[in-house]
Parts: sequence; structure tokens; C-alpha cells
Amino acid sequence: MPEPSDPQLDQEEEQWDLLFTDARLATMVSNGRPYGAEEGMALAVKDGTIAWLGPASALPHHNAERLVPLEGRWMTPGLIDCHTHLVYGGNRAAEFELRLTGATYQEIARAGGGIAATVTATRAASEDELLEAARPRLETLLREGVTVVEIKSGYGLNLEQEAKMLRVARRLAADYPVTIRTSFLGAHAVAPEYGQDRAGYLDAVIAMLPSIAANGLADAVDAFCEGIAFTPDETARLFAAARDLGLPVKLHADQLSDLGGAALAARFGALSADHLEYTNAEGVAAMAAAGTVAVLLPGAFYVLRETQLPPVEAFRRQGVPMALATDCNPGSAPLTSPLLTMNLACTLFRLTPEEALAGFTRNAALALGLGASHGTLEVGKAADLAVWDIERPGELAYRLGFNPLAYALQAGKQRQLAAAA
Amino acid sequence: MPEPSDPQLDQEEEQWDLLFTDARLATMVSNGRPYGAEEGMALAVKDGTIAWLGPASALPHHNAERLVPLEGRWMTPGLIDCHTHLVYGGNRAAEFELRLTGATYQEIARAGGGIAATVTATRAASEDELLEAARPRLETLLREGVTVVEIKSGYGLNLEQEAKMLRVARRLAADYPVTIRTSFLGAHAVAPEYGQDRAGYLDAVIAMLPSIAANGLADAVDAFCEGIAFTPDETARLFAAARDLGLPVKLHADQLSDLGGAALAARFGALSADHLEYTNAEGVAAMAAAGTVAVLLPGAFYVLRETQLPPVEAFRRQGVPMALATDCNPGSAPLTSPLLTMNLACTLFRLTPEEALAGFTRNAALALGLGASHGTLEVGKAADLAVWDIERPGELAYRLGFNPLAYALQAGKQRQLAAAA
Ligand SMILES: [Zn+2]
Ligand SMILES: [Zn+2]
Repeated sequence: MPEPSDPQLDQEEEQWDLLFTDARLATMVSNGRPYGAEEGMALAVKDGTIAWLGPASALPHHNAERLVPLEGRWMTPGLIDCHTHLVYGGNRAAEFELRLTGATYQEIARAGGGIAATVTATRAASEDELLEAARPRLETLLREGVTVVEIKSGYGLNLEQEAKMLRVARRLAADYPVTIRTSFLGAHAVAPEYGQDRAGYLDAVIAMLPSIAANGLADAVDAFCEGIAFTPDETARLFAAARDLGLPVKLHADQLSDLGGAALAARFGALSADHLEYTNAEGVAAMAAAGTVAVLLPGAFYVLRETQLPPVEAFRRQGVPMALATDCNPGSAPLTSPLLTMNLACTLFRLTPEEALAGFTRNAALALGLGASHGTLEVGKAADLAVWDIERPGELAYRLGFNPLAYALQAGKQRQLAAAA
Repeated sequence: MPEPSDPQLDQEEEQWDLLFTDARLATMVSNGRPYGAEEGMALAVKDGTIAWLGPASALPHHNAERLVPLEGRWMTPGLIDCHTHLVYGGNRAAEFELRLTGATYQEIARAGGGIAATVTATRAASEDELLEAARPRLETLLREGVTVVEIKSGYGLNLEQEAKMLRVARRLAADYPVTIRTSFLGAHAVAPEYGQDRAGYLDAVIAMLPSIAANGLADAVDAFCEGIAFTPDETARLFAAARDLGLPVKLHADQLSDLGGAALAARFGALSADHLEYTNAEGVAAMAAAGTVAVLLPGAFYVLRETQLPPVEAFRRQGVPMALATDCNPGSAPLTSPLLTMNLACTLFRLTPEEALAGFTRNAALALGLGASHGTLEVGKAADLAVWDIERPGELAYRLGFNPLAYALQAGKQRQLAAAA
């Protein structure tokens, strides 16, 4: 609180909402040190934004509504999960169990497995039911310091049902202290009504775009370009339509085979190309030239027991920013832990712990087109902040199934989540 | 509460402390159904023990101090983590990071890496400091429904320091609603004071045994039999001394090479042999004959990026009970999630979800010599109970980084842990 009786107080100086002192900051900006680390720092928040940041000794004043001494704790940017399918109906635990008890693919298909099962369950759920089902997953992300989440549609596969999924994603943003970015993924799989008529379904997806755009339901358009999904030509047709509507694009690319998805994404100036296990050298170069972010998804790689590694060394050499995400989905990644995802990326893809944290902060922001406002600790950016009980930032990727988050703030507001058991 | 005015109440019938109704039970006993599942069940608790269990329709009375309708929720035995190194000083995040940034083994050794680093940090910590360091790890286990934890010494490597570790383990049992079983692992590595004199150090370990036993500090004696640790002959010498003191034995066996560790453990009637990636057919047969439990540790397998799989199919064929554990330790498994461990076992070792849950309940109890009192839902066993918000038990192994525990009870007492952030 201001103290008007204090003769030191300059009445013209701005009062901050929050002032953190005695902080160690992993700013994630390039300052020549790993993690952009700075010790003995203070950080001030005003109107949901980082208003000042620097050595405590350089603080212009201490005039803040609330003073929070961090006692040397580490602060990072809030985590950003830039690729999720968080909203869906049902789950696929039964299918997981069938596979492990030796059921054949035919038996699983007969039992209603695969993405078709999730489409059926998602369509059958009301908007409120979908919202309720998504809550515990989102809350789990928030408990690990996530402040921004991307959520895709893609289990509705017609305009009404895709719009329902995206509305649920928007409602989650209203219910929780989190920023949600949505992606329209109508081109996730061919709707069952279309049987083998993939081109016909793709026409229908393109026809959904104007309504999705007009209702402000999608921040980007995504597609699954793969032998088992849509061809590069079909993807290009969809992306051209998205471009005409001014919507940025993203792509599930080169996960199971090399169809040149990364280069295709780059050709459309995609925000990101995602998965990328089979991306070739030309694809990497095209991404570098286009500024397309590589979103790596080690959870799906782990669950599917893939062996083909994404070209991490090539991304490094060519300066392609690498982001990480949970890919949270009921089939190939029933995963709701960014910290575990960081460990998977280090262990399976040999990312460094610093690259892993950049993958959930600075580069994840870029993958969502939020690089100007999120992803690093810098004056003018959103006060999305995570405070951790750790001795060094590398601990975030080191542990498995342990959450050292002290608390997080989104737009300067501290969050209080329901207690875990 | 009893209602004395109720004419139905038989004053002679026993009043239960707790009565759960409308429960789905994964009893983990053999009843011909997966998970020993029973629906529409009631379960009564008296004096910390399961007093009655059966179909709700067969309930002899409803006279209980507290009635808890579970509304169809699933209840399982409390989880049992039967192999951990939970008490230690420091952590090895810096070493993890060095490895991933391309440091050589020499550089890591110079920076004080490996088990020696943990020995130094553990010795430097006071008993209270060790206790404080262990708390968040234990609390993380408890939040996932763990009610019994085994904790090993092995970072002290002299009598005073090993005893300190074991006292910390005993103190944790006094501070938390959890059963702790301790194992003396003096033969974990050669103490630095002994240089290359492994045999000399092993003599010292054997000389520690009487004091450890006399002070009731250890429930079992463990050793690390491996090319980089102790030979089978040395292990046998230690086990013979343990047997003379009436202490059961366990063994870190065949993790990195086949030294016949499993057969050696079986020869001494070991409660368990642990790791077992390289165990051969004779070892499996010897374990089956001796009733030695196979404790599989997929966390260490994952962290070390091993490729040699334990002989799961042989364990099944020969009826060797398979348990699972986190192996929680600062080097090869900074892992504090039984649920993640279950997923690792299914994904990497191809256990079924039912085998994974048996690995953290029935078979983990056997691995600790607690088969008569723990590990299944049966009348007369401890009321160590976990209640889950799931639709089927297979969900426990299916998800990654998600905790569906509603709450747990240890010896019939419901636990309240501090809220997570
Ligand atoms: Zn995806
Ligand atoms: Zn161990």
C-alpha cells in the first residue's frame, strides 16, 4: 500500500501492483548465459504486464500494492502448451488395455477403437459434458505452471460438432486464469459419413472455414498430413482457403512418413510444423527460411514406441526454433504433464534441459504467434509467471513425476487451484 | 453415528468405524475376473483393518460411525512402492544437464558426478536436513495413493551414516500416515575411504550388520551385485551373515549384465530380486522355486536408455510374481510417480495394466514380506485403501502425468495432505 506520510515517496511515481524481490530469473532471453539467467533480481507487475525488471540494486522505487520476497526462488515465464487436443469425449483406456492383452487390430476396431471411438464419444457429449471432461486435464496443466494452452478441434468432423469443441475451448478460457488459443482441425480424419470419399470430406472442411472464422472460433487452421490422413495436395488446398480468410496455419507433418509436410507448411508460412520425425533436410531448410517453428511431441513418440528421431541437430544448425508440447489426446498421448514432456524430450530426443524449457516458453509462444507478448521475462510482456522450488532450472526436466511449482500467475493474477488429494 | 432409538439396531452387533457402500472394488485377489473386480460392493473397516467386504445386498448391518457412499467409484488396495532410495542428500540435476550438453564422463566425474556425489551430499546433511529433503518426495508418493514405502540406505557407507539414513526412514513413518519398510544397503558401492579395496569394505559392511539389526533399523538386507559393484561371492558372504542374524534379503540383480544374481538371490530365499533385465532362464526357474518376487524397475531402464528387456514372458510362464517400483533415486530414476511407473512398465516392458496394478499392490506386498497383511482387499488385511475417479482400473496405467486419486486411507485413517499449488 502507498504510504502518503512517507517523505521518500514521489507522488508522481507509478505504483506497481506487485513487486517480486530476491528472485532468480530464467528470463529465456539471449543474454549470453544459459536460460537467460539473472540472480538477485526484482520484477514488477502493473496491469497484468511486466512493468520493470532488473537487479534489485537498480530498483527505481519500492512502491507496490504487494511486495513478494522470493527468497532466492527461481521464476520462469509461465509454461505454454502449444499443441493439445485437450477437449474430447470418452477415453481410450479400454483400447490401451486390449492392445496389451494381445488383441488384434481387427478386434480393437470391432470394439470401436481408434480416433473413430473418440469422434463418437465427442459427438455424443453435450457442450457442458465436454467442458466437465476437460476440466481435470486443464487443471493438471495449470498445476504445473501452464499459463497458455493451445486446443484443437478435430473430433467433431462436421461444422456443428467442430464448433461445439471450439466453443468449449473458449469457455475454458473464461472459467480459468489461462490464455487459450484454438486451432480448427477439421482435417484430422475423414468423417465417418464420407466413407472413402476423402476429397469430398475435404471440400466440406473447406466449406466450414468461413463460419468458423466469422464466429471467431479459431486462431489458426491445422491439418493432419499423413498417409493415413490427408495428402499434401489436399492440405495445400485447405491452407489456401485458410490464407484467403486471413487465418494462420499449422500442420501435423512427417510423423509417420516423409510426405514433405514440413516444406509444405513452410510454403504457407505456417506458424509451426508439428511432430517432424521424418522431416528431411529440405524441409528443415524451408522451415528455417520461413520462420516456421518445429513443435516436437515426444509423448506420442514414446506411446507409439517410434524409433525414427526428429532431426534435432539439423534444427539446431539451421536455427529452427524448437518448441515442445504435451499433444494431450486420448489415443497417442494421454499426457497432461509439461514437466514430464520436458524429460521425455531430453531422454528420448537428447534436447538439453535449457532447450526443453525454451520449448515450453519462448519457442512455444512463437509457435502460437504470441512471440511479442509471451514466452520470456521482458518488460512489456504479459506477467505470466511461474515460481519454482528448485535450485537450478535444469531440475524442471530432470525429475519424473514430481512437481516443484510453488505457484503461478497469469496476467499478474495469482492462481489458487483446488487442492490435490 | 449409532442410533440407539433405532429398533433395528442389534446392540450386540459390532459397530464399524467406517462403511463404504456403492463401491467398485479391484480386490486384486483371484476370483476369475480381471483385477479381482467386484461391483455393487460394500467394505467395512474396524480398528484399521478390513472387517467385512461383500455385495451390498449381503451387508449384515449398517451400524458404522461413518458411512461413505462411493457412488460407483473404484477402490483398490493402497499402492505399495517396494523399492526406493527415497532418503538422500542433494540431487543430480547438474549432472543430468552436463550429460545432455555433451560433457564427457571425465568432466562429469571431475564435477563430482555419480553415486559419489550423492554419498558426499548425504553425509554432509544432518538427520533433520535429510528428513526435510525426503518430505516432498514422500508426499508426492502419498498423493498418488501410496500407503507402504520401502526405503533403502546406501549413500552413507559407514555405520554412523547408514544408521542416520535408516533413522530418517523410521522418522518418516512417525510423521506420515504410511507404513515404511527399511532395507540396509551398505553394499551399494564401495565407500570412498576404501579406494579399490572392495573386499575390505565388504568386511566392514558385514561388521555393521549386528548393530543395524540390534537397533531395529532394517527390515531386510539388500546389495548391488554387478560388474560395477559387488561380485556374487561377496554378495553371498553378506547374505550368509544376514541369514545368521535372521534378516531377510533382497538383491539388485542382473541390471546391466548377467552375473547369475537372480539365482543367487533365490538360493538365499530372497524376498525379491530387483531389475533383472539380464536374468537367464535358470535364474527365472530358481526364483519360481524359491518364491522370490521379481521387482521390475522400468524408470531406471528408461532413464539409462537400456535396450535389454527383462524376461517378462518367462516370469509369466513360471509363475514368478512381478512387482513394480519407482526405484526413486537421484541418479538413474528421479521418479516419484507409481502411476507413471505403471505406464512405463506397460509401454516399455509390455505388462498388462492389470499386471501393472498387481505390481504395485499384491506382488509388491510379497516383495516386502507383507503378503499376509497387505496388497489385496480381503477381510483381515490392513485397511490401506485408495479411491479413484476412474471408470475402469486400466485407466491407472493408461494416462501419463495425471492423478485420478480421490483420496487414500492408511490403516483406516483418511489422509489429508497439503494442497498442491
Ligand atoms: Zn496432435
Ligand atoms: Zn535401487
